[in-house]
Amino acid sequence: MRLRGVRPLTLVSWHPVLLALLPDCPMPSPSYRLEPLPGYAPTIGRLVGILLYARHTTLTAVQGLSTAELDHLQDGAGNSIGALLAHIAVVERSYHCLTFEERRPSAPELAAWEPALTLGAEGRRLLRGKPLEHYVQELSEARRLTLEGLAARDDAWLERPLRPAPAMNAHFAWFHAAEDEINHRGQMRWLRARLGSAATGLPRSD
Amino acid sequence: MRLRGVRPLTLVSWHPVLLALLPDCPMPSPSYRLEPLPGYAPTIGRLVGILLYARHTTLTAVQGLSTAELDHLQDGAGNSIGALLAHIAVVERSYHCLTFEERRPSAPELAAWEPALTLGAEGRRLLRGKPLEHYVQELSEARRLTLEGLAARDDAWLERPLRPAPAMNAHFAWFHAAEDEINHRGQMRWLRARLGSAATGLPRSD
Repeated sequence: MRLRGVRPLTLVSWHPVLLALLPDCPMPSPSYRLEPLPGYAPTIGRLVGILLYARHTTLTAVQGLSTAELDHLQDGAGNSIGALLAHIAVVERSYHCLTFEERRPSAPELAAWEPALTLGAEGRRLLRGKPLEHYVQELSEARRLTLEGLAARDDAWLERPLRPAPAMNAHFAWFHAAEDEINHRGQMRWLRARLGSAATGLPRSD
Repeated sequence: MRLRGVRPLTLVSWHPVLLALLPDCPMPSPSYRLEPLPGYAPTIGRLVGILLYARHTTLTAVQGLSTAELDHLQDGAGNSIGALLAHIAVVERSYHCLTFEERRPSAPELAAWEPALTLGAEGRRLLRGKPLEHYVQELSEARRLTLEGLAARDDAWLERPLRPAPAMNAHFAWFHAAEDEINHRGQMRWLRARLGSAATGLPRSD
């Protein structure tokens, strides 16, 4: 990633600190402050800032990809960008069960989510042929429920042990949802930079 | 990533929520709770939990790699795992300047960090030939200074705008240090799974 020859939004989504060092360079959205947010308890608001930033960078990383690009497999062991987007959406769904409903996902839920949750061969076989709008819709619906659930709860709830997984609290669970998304976003950037399509708009850089 | 046939630590570092769903499965370190930590202001402690978790998963992702494996380039446009580890260390150093010293990195600092900070061709040329211990030492020294700096500050400092980059606060800056590390950890896992070495110990999965 270089300071020159990279579109500001791309650079920002990778290294806002470097953008901040550029003279007279505007700071576009998203926010570069983690702080309490209106409509959320203070600590939940800071967590929501992390979730929103992670999602912004994910959507930036896949912007404009065609179905063929979303389905592209770099090799026989990897996951397509589309499969990774489906994964992010079902991971978020699984945390709705664990944190908001305080239960483990049901067998039918796990069966429905299995290809996207575990990725690998089943994901390569089943998670394809969908346009970007399909994945964005799945992500948006999961995120809508996440923000509704977090807005309805308080900071004491956030750090209580989870009933179905007492070694974990909801704060970690929702950080981990963002952390897993960021991990796969790094892979999506790597994969996108190798699609070799003029449409990708991203530099050949990791 | 599959529920069966994956070492617990590997699984945990990817999906603790899935591990939590396995019957009678112990929850190894690190902590799966984000909450205030002894020795830190409450909000800073939650942030430190994020930084420690991210670093734990980075070190797990590179455990046991040889110098040749750390230097391996998947293609002519990518970065080696070693270069990504060097990048994580200098990004952390740059945040020491911005947040603790409230100044932009100096020209000599930026010149010294440039290959690891911007990665790409210079990184491919210069960041090689070092054993894992070299990168772990760089990461550990940077992290020691991070934790010392955070332990010495309060939550009001954490969310004040940064003097050298007022669009950002220290809370975002340090989350971003972890977020950038997690992004590259996702790439390191992808690269490691393709080293084709029995020594890597990780499944061929992203």
